[in-house]
Amino acid sequence: MLSDIEIANAAVLRPIKDVASETLGIEERHLVPYGHHKAKVDLTHLASLADRPLGRLVLVTALSPTPPGEGKTTTTVGLTDALHGLGHSTVACLREPSMGPVFGMKGGAAGGGYSQVVPMTDINLHFTGDFAALAAANNLLAALIDNHVHHGNELDIDVRSVTWKRVLDVNDRALREVVVALGGHVNGFPREDGFDIVVASELMAIFCLTESWADLKRRIGDIVIGYTRAMKPVTARDLGAHGAMAALLRDALAPNLVQTLEGAPAFVHGGPFANIAHGCSSVMATRAGLRLADLVVTEAGFGADLGAEKFVDIKCRKSGLRPDVAVVVATVRALKYHGGVALADLGTEDIGAVEAGMVNLRRHLDNIREVYGIPCVVAVNRFPSDTDTEIARVVDLVAAEGVRAYPATHFADGGLGAQDLAKGVLQALDEPSPYTFSFTYDDDLSLTGKVEAIATRLYGAGLVTWDAKARRRLTRIERDGYGGLPVCVAKTQYSFSTDPTVVGAPSGHELHVREVRLSAGAGFVVVVCGDMMTMPGLPRDPSASRIDLADDGTILGLS
Amino acid sequence: MLSDIEIANAAVLRPIKDVASETLGIEERHLVPYGHHKAKVDLTHLASLADRPLGRLVLVTALSPTPPGEGKTTTTVGLTDALHGLGHSTVACLREPSMGPVFGMKGGAAGGGYSQVVPMTDINLHFTGDFAALAAANNLLAALIDNHVHHGNELDIDVRSVTWKRVLDVNDRALREVVVALGGHVNGFPREDGFDIVVASELMAIFCLTESWADLKRRIGDIVIGYTRAMKPVTARDLGAHGAMAALLRDALAPNLVQTLEGAPAFVHGGPFANIAHGCSSVMATRAGLRLADLVVTEAGFGADLGAEKFVDIKCRKSGLRPDVAVVVATVRALKYHGGVALADLGTEDIGAVEAGMVNLRRHLDNIREVYGIPCVVAVNRFPSDTDTEIARVVDLVAAEGVRAYPATHFADGGLGAQDLAKGVLQALDEPSPYTFSFTYDDDLSLTGKVEAIATRLYGAGLVTWDAKARRRLTRIERDGYGGLPVCVAKTQYSFSTDPTVVGAPSGHELHVREVRLSAGAGFVVVVCGDMMTMPGLPRDPSASRIDLADDGTILGLS
Repeated sequence: MLSDIEIANAAVLRPIKDVASETLGIEERHLVPYGHHKAKVDLTHLASLADRPLGRLVLVTALSPTPPGEGKTTTTVGLTDALHGLGHSTVACLREPSMGPVFGMKGGAAGGGYSQVVPMTDINLHFTGDFAALAAANNLLAALIDNHVHHGNELDIDVRSVTWKRVLDVNDRALREVVVALGGHVNGFPREDGFDIVVASELMAIFCLTESWADLKRRIGDIVIGYTRAMKPVTARDLGAHGAMAALLRDALAPNLVQTLEGAPAFVHGGPFANIAHGCSSVMATRAGLRLADLVVTEAGFGADLGAEKFVDIKCRKSGLRPDVAVVVATVRALKYHGGVALADLGTEDIGAVEAGMVNLRRHLDNIREVYGIPCVVAVNRFPSDTDTEIARVVDLVAAEGVRAYPATHFADGGLGAQDLAKGVLQALDEPSPYTFSFTYDDDLSLTGKVEAIATRLYGAGLVTWDAKARRRLTRIERDGYGGLPVCVAKTQYSFSTDPTVVGAPSGHELHVREVRLSAGAGFVVVVCGDMMTMPGLPRDPSASRIDLADDGTILGLS
Repeated sequence: MLSDIEIANAAVLRPIKDVASETLGIEERHLVPYGHHKAKVDLTHLASLADRPLGRLVLVTALSPTPPGEGKTTTTVGLTDALHGLGHSTVACLREPSMGPVFGMKGGAAGGGYSQVVPMTDINLHFTGDFAALAAANNLLAALIDNHVHHGNELDIDVRSVTWKRVLDVNDRALREVVVALGGHVNGFPREDGFDIVVASELMAIFCLTESWADLKRRIGDIVIGYTRAMKPVTARDLGAHGAMAALLRDALAPNLVQTLEGAPAFVHGGPFANIAHGCSSVMATRAGLRLADLVVTEAGFGADLGAEKFVDIKCRKSGLRPDVAVVVATVRALKYHGGVALADLGTEDIGAVEAGMVNLRRHLDNIREVYGIPCVVAVNRFPSDTDTEIARVVDLVAAEGVRAYPATHFADGGLGAQDLAKGVLQALDEPSPYTFSFTYDDDLSLTGKVEAIATRLYGAGLVTWDAKARRRLTRIERDGYGGLPVCVAKTQYSFSTDPTVVGAPSGHELHVREVRLSAGAGFVVVVCGDMMTMPGLPRDPSASRIDLADDGTILGLS
């Protein structure tokens, strides 16, 4: 089979203005083109659609993934292509890839095989400049903070308390911990600082939860960058930074429209981390999709304990959006992994391990149906090494849970490979839901109570413990009036516990909270359990060394 | 009079595809649109025009400026509009603004008054993403350097010798001097480091001297990032970084087309500093303009001792381009400043000071004609406080030098205000030049000899002295085989000397070289005289606090 970039480069793309008009009814004058195959949809036009009824929302999530991932994006694209191919007005809503992993280890993030969004190189590199705009706005605020302190510090900011970091869209471990403002008094007051990758920034989370330009400016103004020496929160508004930051994000806030290899429309917009942030593409894009198409297929990050939980408890809570059905991506490989098989041995048939690993998928299915109250189907994303017996066993095991499972081969076969899945999704959408959509916890529960609700109801944890420092921070956050916010748990995606090596469905374990951070602009409190990497590093042999530019302008080596 | 942004926001822009086809004969299919009013011109199309004859090149330069500047960009736009209005096929080639000054003190850099390029907010913020792409490529190389060292340092890079800095497009003094890679062994090897603003990067200079994608990759490969412990230069090619960096710049390399307020075409592409780098917009844009139009009007940075010198000795030397006439922008204000009047008093009529300040302009005119061998005219850029007597005196003083001077009011009146100037330029282009174009020095002169040639022939200096460290560095650079490169003098723009307070035309002074830097990819050796700021800071009351986003998406407060 051809590589992802070979497939993408061989594709004949349609002009995006034709895709926009024919699939979504958007006239060319409402598009802001970025080349001939990417466009933003004018926000003023989108605002004019406010009275339109909303389409139905399909959330793609997964069981706890293995390190190589289970193909959530690929399934989102394949399912969109299948629904599109069956004649249903459908749009995919995906996250934008970060350039960090592109030049590091993971490669691109625009789907894979014959389920990709294109133009693949553009989407993976720069795209329409959203991440650069976010970095510029983020770093302007950082510069304004140090500048304020340098010029007399009228607000009396305690530089030891500044939590607002600078960001870059590159994997650069050397920037994780730095000391800035060295070199004497003309360079300001030295302090410890650090850089995060753009996708880990609070500004990215804000961007993805924003509903309008005015809302964007308000949320940015609410950002707490640190504290005064009297321990009063200092906001971006206090620094007069929010107007300029919002101006820098004006264009970026409009959703980016591209196409799948099969010509279905796709919004690719925003991309926050799913640990430190909520891991979903933008509300702007989801809502635009729901107004423009009958069906929106969107994905949430990591497994359903993280991505889907945050989709429900953060994105849905804040936006009022509601998923109509969840597609849970499962793979034979991941089930065997949760059944105790080592990563290197996942290519070998092992029915016993598949059965044992079902505990992981089962808990996710229970959470989605019983806690979030969303009906679901399972997509069994088939890999070449999977045997027919294994696939059949997964379908049976899922059926025993009262859920329909559909093997899918969209990676190799495009939309046609996900047609059964698409029909299953349509059937689930047609059936009355036996569940009632619900949040995991109510707003008025204490922050501690919210974390406990997630830990016990979703993770199977027995208790939540707190570092003393984290507990103090929580108390301060509540005292400052942020206790009504939802929480955003940052933990490993590989396990229901905080230990990435504990596969399956652990129970009664301890969820230890190491750190608490306030994302006042985004409107949630981050609860960090375990080590969270917010600035990745490059591997010994990074993809960057294989990516190349041919003399005719062709980009080579992206994967 | 309205503010710059009020004028720009009130302008009715034509679709850029119409401007491109009607003024430059570029078909829509050869444009890569960025919205409806900005486009890149496809590089493959531009390469196909290689056989076309070149138009004529008008270089806009200036006397030594005052801190507020003399209106070089405004004059370039006004002259372009005037030539366009007179029915001549003309395109302006300008530098892209940096966002640093936009949010700091200086404001935007897209001309001013009724001589602007538009869309003004877009050009000043993000534009087509070129600076973001340059930052991404620059910072990928930085990450690859520290990553190489972290993973065993096979090349034996001496981290103390790494000269490749990270960059951001923001004024942030806290990033000038930092220590990176703190926090223990997982974060790499701590070292002293610093950030420059994007426009000060070698990559920006490379970008602006590049002729094709292949040339771009080759030049990037030549970058010397530091030395091994055995003092051997380490290049970006040694690190395998050049292919990925070139890929990141693929799209950016195509020139950006916009329009003036009067509908003339303008390429706005690249923008290196005029001290640490050569200060000219891209060769790609200039050459494209010369193939597509009869006349190209372009500007060089700072005064003619810096910008025009580098235009001649670096850009022309490397590209083979030749200016046909120079327009030297002078103002009554600057002449009075060089005649000894304090900045605060420049609004008061003072004929004696104008006469005394003529020494500065006279030396520039001599240099341009006698050293560079370029015929010239003077544009007297009129300010509201200038009196008719002062203006008339300048015209007479310039005439006494054998040069025609044309008062111009394009800031207030648009192209009509520069019509006399335009006719003067056309007349100069029609006359046979009495001069022979020449470089200030030959390639085979030693680096020391090159600096001495510039210092004595152009600056009127009596001698060149060197810090011992700078001298050692120069010796090493010559020993490593870079002695044949041109030099790029980084000194203050306010004086022919290295002391910004020495106005007029000092003679016999000492040019002291404090530091020498190799820009092997750009292909020049930077000779730093005096303090050079490669990362500006924000003022106490930055423009950022006045820039705002209205609820309807209008950006306010740019100047």
